[in-house]
Amino acid sequence: MKRVLYDLAAADETVRFSPYCWRVKLALAHKNLSYTTVPWRFTDKAALAFSGQDKVPVLVDGAKVVADSQTIAEYLETAYPNEASLFGEPPSRALTKFIKAWTEDVLQRAIAPLVLPHLVTILAPQDQAYFRETRERVWGTTLEDLAARRAEFLPGLEAALRPLRTMLKAQSFLAGPAPAYADHLVYGAIKWGLTTSAEPLLPAGDAILTWMDGVLATYGL
Amino acid sequence: MKRVLYDLAAADETVRFSPYCWRVKLALAHKNLSYTTVPWRFTDKAALAFSGQDKVPVLVDGAKVVADSQTIAEYLETAYPNEASLFGEPPSRALTKFIKAWTEDVLQRAIAPLVLPHLVTILAPQDQAYFRETRERVWGTTLEDLAARRAEFLPGLEAALRPLRTMLKAQSFLAGPAPAYADHLVYGAIKWGLTTSAEPLLPAGDAILTWMDGVLATYGL
Repeated sequence: MKRVLYDLAAADETVRFSPYCWRVKLALAHKNLSYTTVPWRFTDKAALAFSGQDKVPVLVDGAKVVADSQTIAEYLETAYPNEASLFGEPPSRALTKFIKAWTEDVLQRAIAPLVLPHLVTILAPQDQAYFRETRERVWGTTLEDLAARRAEFLPGLEAALRPLRTMLKAQSFLAGPAPAYADHLVYGAIKWGLTTSAEPLLPAGDAILTWMDGVLATYGL
Repeated sequence: MKRVLYDLAAADETVRFSPYCWRVKLALAHKNLSYTTVPWRFTDKAALAFSGQDKVPVLVDGAKVVADSQTIAEYLETAYPNEASLFGEPPSRALTKFIKAWTEDVLQRAIAPLVLPHLVTILAPQDQAYFRETRERVWGTTLEDLAARRAEFLPGLEAALRPLRTMLKAQSFLAGPAPAYADHLVYGAIKWGLTTSAEPLLPAGDAILTWMDGVLATYGL
């Protein structure tokens, strides 16, 4: 069966940075599903018209088209019930919702001001104006202002990462001895940061990098 | 069987504010276990000598003595396996560890500077010097300085609560349709804040207060 993921790409199409696409790639690996990716840029709205909306990730799984990372994860869980569960039983599925909220409301929000000023420069030229305009509207300021205030935002990242660091001292993955969707959520956020930051966000050998390597190693990636 | 919880108290012994003791009280309710409490003050170290350490919560469950909120929760889960589970199956148990780290590293840390200056004033007179000294050491400043900087700390509380608010829009409790230990952890932190703040930490009708009422209502409290 043909399985294709539309995956956000930079000007260099081998650079894939979307946290939401990373979630899906790890969820596909977790479900032991092979796939190919189509590099996609923010302004390629027409290329997604078949999906009835205009954002990635979009998964084409044979005849099935699914958009939105959470919808895709839930689709994979239902469509491939014989593979390892992404969410586990309730209450684990419910707790994963909190991890998702924390990832988006706290972690991605702490990473964003540190990476957005450089991120715009690695995008395909046709994407840069769109990206700048939408992000400057969200942050209420220019990307250059965010860059100038980098030192002010760095402590926020370390504060945001604190519970992850505490937890990693006690166990290998958020979901316990093996990763699950909770890990995919957090991995996607940090991978986005690492891929798009001008300067290293985490020092070599950091426990969080070791955890990320462990996630990939679990899936033979 | 005699079941007694040593529970931190203010000068007014009906005021019980310890987040760690609240966790245990909710865990006992979750396990459908009745108990009485012994009000305890920070400086009553001698009263806990029988437990081999000097902090509450301490649970005396018949012949068994257990200290530390996490150890008590794990003891209750093992000793009362026929009652509703506090943690659920793995990976839920593992995800609850992340909630614990977030509760302590982020939420309690955001609440602390808003409540410590008033908290010291409601303590028993013999506890006040101990409390002031230990907390001023942790914060590297005086309680009066924290009080003066209250407006600076308020946005940190709202930022910390953001993922909880997002999650409560999608589901009733952290653990899903019914509360579990993940809810007890977060409840304890916010109950501590609400009980010890000079000014209301949350406005009447706030969704977080509704969730807290729901936790108590689940247990008929």
